[in-house]
Amino acid sequence: MINLTFPDGAVRSYDDGASGLDVAKSISEGLMRKVLAVEFNGKVIDAFQPITEDGTIKFLTWDDEGGKSTFWHSSAHLMAEAIQEFYPDTKFAIGPPIANGFYYDIDLGDEKITDEDLAKIEKKMKEHASKKERFSRKQVSKADAVAYFTEKNDPYKLELIEGLEDGNITFYTQGDFTDLCRGPHIPNTGYIKAIRLMNIAGAYWRGDEKNKMLTRIYGVTFPSNKELEEHLAMLEEAKKRDHRKLGKELELFAFSEKVGAGLPLWLPKGAMLRERLQQFLQKAQIESGYLPVITPHIGNINLYKTSGHYEKYGKDSFQPIKTPHEGEEFLLKPMNCPHHCEIYKTSPKSYKDLPVRYAEFGTVYRYEQAGELHGLTRVRGFTQDDAHLFCRPDQVKEEFKKVIDLVLYVFNSLGFSDFTAQVSLRDKEDRSKYIGAEENWDIAENAIREAAAERGLRTVEAYGEAAFYGPKLDFMVKDAIGRSWQLGTIQVDYGLPERFELEYVDSDNTRKRPVMIHRAPFGSMERFVAVLLEHCGGKLPLWLVPTQVKILPISDKFMDYANQVKDILHKQDIRVEIDDRQEKIGKKIRDTELQKIPYMLIVGEKEMESNTVGVRKQSVGDLGAKPVEDFAAHIQQEVNEKLA
Amino acid sequence: MINLTFPDGAVRSYDDGASGLDVAKSISEGLMRKVLAVEFNGKVIDAFQPITEDGTIKFLTWDDEGGKSTFWHSSAHLMAEAIQEFYPDTKFAIGPPIANGFYYDIDLGDEKITDEDLAKIEKKMKEHASKKERFSRKQVSKADAVAYFTEKNDPYKLELIEGLEDGNITFYTQGDFTDLCRGPHIPNTGYIKAIRLMNIAGAYWRGDEKNKMLTRIYGVTFPSNKELEEHLAMLEEAKKRDHRKLGKELELFAFSEKVGAGLPLWLPKGAMLRERLQQFLQKAQIESGYLPVITPHIGNINLYKTSGHYEKYGKDSFQPIKTPHEGEEFLLKPMNCPHHCEIYKTSPKSYKDLPVRYAEFGTVYRYEQAGELHGLTRVRGFTQDDAHLFCRPDQVKEEFKKVIDLVLYVFNSLGFSDFTAQVSLRDKEDRSKYIGAEENWDIAENAIREAAAERGLRTVEAYGEAAFYGPKLDFMVKDAIGRSWQLGTIQVDYGLPERFELEYVDSDNTRKRPVMIHRAPFGSMERFVAVLLEHCGGKLPLWLVPTQVKILPISDKFMDYANQVKDILHKQDIRVEIDDRQEKIGKKIRDTELQKIPYMLIVGEKEMESNTVGVRKQSVGDLGAKPVEDFAAHIQQEVNEKLA
Repeated sequence: MINLTFPDGAVRSYDDGASGLDVAKSISEGLMRKVLAVEFNGKVIDAFQPITEDGTIKFLTWDDEGGKSTFWHSSAHLMAEAIQEFYPDTKFAIGPPIANGFYYDIDLGDEKITDEDLAKIEKKMKEHASKKERFSRKQVSKADAVAYFTEKNDPYKLELIEGLEDGNITFYTQGDFTDLCRGPHIPNTGYIKAIRLMNIAGAYWRGDEKNKMLTRIYGVTFPSNKELEEHLAMLEEAKKRDHRKLGKELELFAFSEKVGAGLPLWLPKGAMLRERLQQFLQKAQIESGYLPVITPHIGNINLYKTSGHYEKYGKDSFQPIKTPHEGEEFLLKPMNCPHHCEIYKTSPKSYKDLPVRYAEFGTVYRYEQAGELHGLTRVRGFTQDDAHLFCRPDQVKEEFKKVIDLVLYVFNSLGFSDFTAQVSLRDKEDRSKYIGAEENWDIAENAIREAAAERGLRTVEAYGEAAFYGPKLDFMVKDAIGRSWQLGTIQVDYGLPERFELEYVDSDNTRKRPVMIHRAPFGSMERFVAVLLEHCGGKLPLWLVPTQVKILPISDKFMDYANQVKDILHKQDIRVEIDDRQEKIGKKIRDTELQKIPYMLIVGEKEMESNTVGVRKQSVGDLGAKPVEDFAAHIQQEVNEKLA
Repeated sequence: MINLTFPDGAVRSYDDGASGLDVAKSISEGLMRKVLAVEFNGKVIDAFQPITEDGTIKFLTWDDEGGKSTFWHSSAHLMAEAIQEFYPDTKFAIGPPIANGFYYDIDLGDEKITDEDLAKIEKKMKEHASKKERFSRKQVSKADAVAYFTEKNDPYKLELIEGLEDGNITFYTQGDFTDLCRGPHIPNTGYIKAIRLMNIAGAYWRGDEKNKMLTRIYGVTFPSNKELEEHLAMLEEAKKRDHRKLGKELELFAFSEKVGAGLPLWLPKGAMLRERLQQFLQKAQIESGYLPVITPHIGNINLYKTSGHYEKYGKDSFQPIKTPHEGEEFLLKPMNCPHHCEIYKTSPKSYKDLPVRYAEFGTVYRYEQAGELHGLTRVRGFTQDDAHLFCRPDQVKEEFKKVIDLVLYVFNSLGFSDFTAQVSLRDKEDRSKYIGAEENWDIAENAIREAAAERGLRTVEAYGEAAFYGPKLDFMVKDAIGRSWQLGTIQVDYGLPERFELEYVDSDNTRKRPVMIHRAPFGSMERFVAVLLEHCGGKLPLWLVPTQVKILPISDKFMDYANQVKDILHKQDIRVEIDDRQEKIGKKIRDTELQKIPYMLIVGEKEMESNTVGVRKQSVGDLGAKPVEDFAAHIQQEVNEKLA
């Protein structure tokens, strides 16, 4: 008999060799049908694998990340099985699950797959799925593994096997398809009810442009058709909300080949939007005791040798900047922290001076390969809403709570109401990879846990996810169409205070190292604006939107009155434009809707005579005529409520 | 006879060969005694030189830059004469007038001059001055010049002669000293009544570190002792106001060796000061129709090849930034204009869209040699309050007027009331060095002149001082101790629109090039803050100062009341701190005076009971007790008045 401990703490005994499915069945048939894999002693394994020792067990279903990725991993095998049937000479490279589905990189030899072939493969996958082919797992010796793939003439698998340890190699088979695979997999292909192969791309073997270009086929699968349809609808909606498209339509930002890929140019409306966001956060930060600082965008290379960033970013990023005299070398800054450490050192600090909180909207530069760039979410230069808090170990929890408050204030003000926070902790087993005193780690990890709990955050704990220099708290935000984005982050750092030899004089007159906290509620201005645009589909909150009001004169006759209205609103700091084109009012209304401007004011004979404006609200419609001053008061109240 | 035209337009006849002194004497003896040199047909010449043709004449006295520099140039010769007497083997390199005096670079061979020797040289100079030795001018052939300095064994003069054209070489002699010199000089050494040799420094021959290090002796002279004393008092005052000293005392900025020389770190108080200045200008700019933009701090090297900046800055500045893949190269931006041109090009423009005014507080980087760096006035990275106006040729004058208004608003708000503007025009003779159509230059030069006149600016016109790409208007500001600083600038540019092929569609449907105007009222944030600090001696205007009010509790007993007062003021956005040290009130007052905080509020028994504060104003003294709310209203009124 073995004893299994469940997440709620209950312990039950089972026959030695019982599988996760057996255990689930003992609870209910319904549960068993939902189980895709199990987490046993912290490791995800096949639900059909026999368990032969005591341990903790957790069932993974479609609602768990681990369940979904097992499902998609098995779907990649199912796709490979179908491809093998049509193209028997195919060599298979790797086929992992990804954020939204899976892919398989394959070498088709002389064959070629086009988009038209995908439907055929999809159909074949469904055939195999309906057969409920069971996934089976087999441990094989390295020699046997090599023999098998030599026979198959698959150089990719052979190269992968080379890197594996004998005794640690497994094959998975379903139907006629066998793959070198660590697993785990779902019990059988019958779980896969809905399939959509998305597209074909090229990908270098092992991501190296010196290697052969393989064919990558992307797909996504679901336990039901309903979920597939929802997913496709979400993709359709995401396309409409693509921030690159909205950025162009709303004239927020642009790129120029001459300036360089991945280096955004913020156009006037985007620059104003970004400055408004910065001012909003800056104001909240100053009220929370942050001190703004401004530092240069370069630093002597020795600064980054001290900080360790040169070692980390040096080779793969923008190269050192040489100078014509004196042999100095500079680096574009990849992070603001080294500069802030130097500011900390400009004056001696006592325990009474801490915490010190330096904040900077600091633009940093990191090189990304051209193919990896994407709108504002993956760029080569971006502005972090950065701050570094230098505090005593006993202040970490209180500071964390204050930072959480700030992050929540930011999320709430911007309409992000659905988020979780991941507490990233040390690896339970191997602590050798972390720097900083054991005792301080314990303080900090508990401080983060308690701070998150006291602020009522929904958290998940992730062991082994801490940075080598300290534990952290990352915020995952769900947008309006259900996608998750990592936005804010709060990180404890024991490394830099050590490297920069930062000190404060404690109450007992001894010199101590402060603890450093890095934090960025937005993450970066670029990424945040991108996520915000996609979240609200370009319909920005009233307090942020570049143009709040558009005045639509019914004809030129009312231009004078339109200008009077504009002046009244403008004087009250309302951002207002006039549509002075000689177009029919219907067209003006339609165009203004497309520009996603929150309010339209229609002015014609009736309005001019009664000193009113005809108010139309975006996505709502006609609100009737209002005196201009009433409308101004209304809009200001709406702004103030959102920012309260 | 010759006919001379005076600045007031009057024309008078004189004997052929009359000197400027003769002409001045014909007007009055008093005038003659004041004339140091004359400007004849736009060229400065000796007042004792015979004039042999018709032309315009202007007398230069101590009140003219040309008079002063002639005086100091002659003083350098006088110093050389004295040095030659003490150290006969000295070789003389160059001895020019500078902004505040003169220097001479000399090669003393095995001899050495120390600070103690300066008094001796000064004394000898006075001896020669009292002899009223006349300066005489002699044209010499190149061969004779070479012979003379070969005999003197002076390699420096010989190298200088090498670069001169035969027929164009003159010697000046006073007493026993003869120098290779273009002149002009004052009539005799007797004009020099007050002398102070300031200090000794090292300087490479021709500024090149590969050459020999020479001894540079700095001096300053005046027509009277009173002026020397005023100058020395000014220097003393300048030392107290040195922005590097004030920046440290007021905790505004710092430098770090690890970050790099010439790369300022703005400390919290400095960062807030700078942000307040930026917001002040940004607000004024937005009200004047400017559009903010934000661009990266680097650009592909091709951007700067297009703009011409790579050619201009490439070799002597920060070198290109290489990348690990794709062979791209980037440059730190030395200017913001190329990025703004690319923004202009993101959408087509019609004549109705112009002017378009893009504004950015853009940080640029230019390499300076370490020895040339100086506090915030000479740095390697600085933030320009930059804007680029793209307009039609017919809009240049109107735009210039608006920019002048903005510059004057800035100067007035910051207490700079004494300034002149230099209109920098084309060379009258050689127009080949300028780009852009003749007709557009005429329009622009006249537009600048007229705009300056219509705004009542005090201007000087400087032919040949225009940039090759267009005419400009530079503002020279006098600070509180009489020093001149070049601050704001407005420049017309025909070059970049051409290089970037910028266009707009004109009313006749043809494509035209816009005119570009560069302008920066502050110049750069760094330089402006430095000048402002030196101008006000660290006593910043109330609206700008980091801490406006310091509350000084007489003892700990009044800390609660002090905190209440602080909260009341803080809620009204008044920047307030408490001096919570356990010090006597006298010391607190003295320390707060040193920190240059405008208002002190003393709180003790009496104040607490009557709900008042004891108000002391910086440099003024006790203003008596006031209710807290009255004081808050008072300070807010003071701020608003300054910014009205």
